[in-house]
Amino acid sequence: MSELNKHSCKSDSVKEVQHVCTNFHNAIEFIGKRWMGAVIYALMTGPKRYHEIISSIPGISDRLLTERLRDLESEGLITKKVIATSPKRVEYELTTAGKDLEEVINTLVKWAKNHSNK
Amino acid sequence: MSELNKHSCKSDSVKEVQHVCTNFHNAIEFIGKRWMGAVIYALMTGPKRYHEIISSIPGISDRLLTERLRDLESEGLITKKVIATSPKRVEYELTTAGKDLEEVINTLVKWAKNHSNK
Repeated sequence: MSELNKHSCKSDSVKEVQHVCTNFHNAIEFIGKRWMGAVIYALMTGPKRYHEIISSIPGISDRLLTERLRDLESEGLITKKVIATSPKRVEYELTTAGKDLEEVINTLVKWAKNHSNK
Repeated sequence: MSELNKHSCKSDSVKEVQHVCTNFHNAIEFIGKRWMGAVIYALMTGPKRYHEIISSIPGISDRLLTERLRDLESEGLITKKVIATSPKRVEYELTTAGKDLEEVINTLVKWAKNHSNK
């Protein structure tokens, strides 16, 4: 049985169901924010510096990237690692929760690929 | 090897990769539009009439639901079925491409559930 069939967002009598629905609702709108998917995607292959992220996403602005990195940090999906070199280096890295999004991203990449060929 | 590791959005030398990245980018922002996830979720259990959809999504407005149904129809993810009863009945149903999103939705429901418990 799929996750979906086990839970119905229609029922509001069960707190657990409401909780799952609210979290799903927040999660899908969070990852669907402008450029969010591309930023998560860019970090999936490992920690990256700011300039590496921006150069891997054609079209994203400085302002948007900074905003998305802040969103991801405040949601606990990335950490900002300061490496004590001179000059110091800052790297952004997905946390375990952030890395766990890989399955979501992969199924969506697969869907987008299949769907666009139709 | 994951879908993700096979494709890098960094490279712009391969048309196929660019194509996958653009489609992924469009897909994630499409499903992340305001209320879109909830509307797709509501239709996952089968065809539904307008009033059934709106009553299953607490908080969505008429305007937003109408807009999302139009978005989904123009992307080929739902069809509008007119049943010739008197008065006639209109049902919205996911197409095969729409139903294929179930895997994406399920992995995200699972992720949201795990992530919120941490």
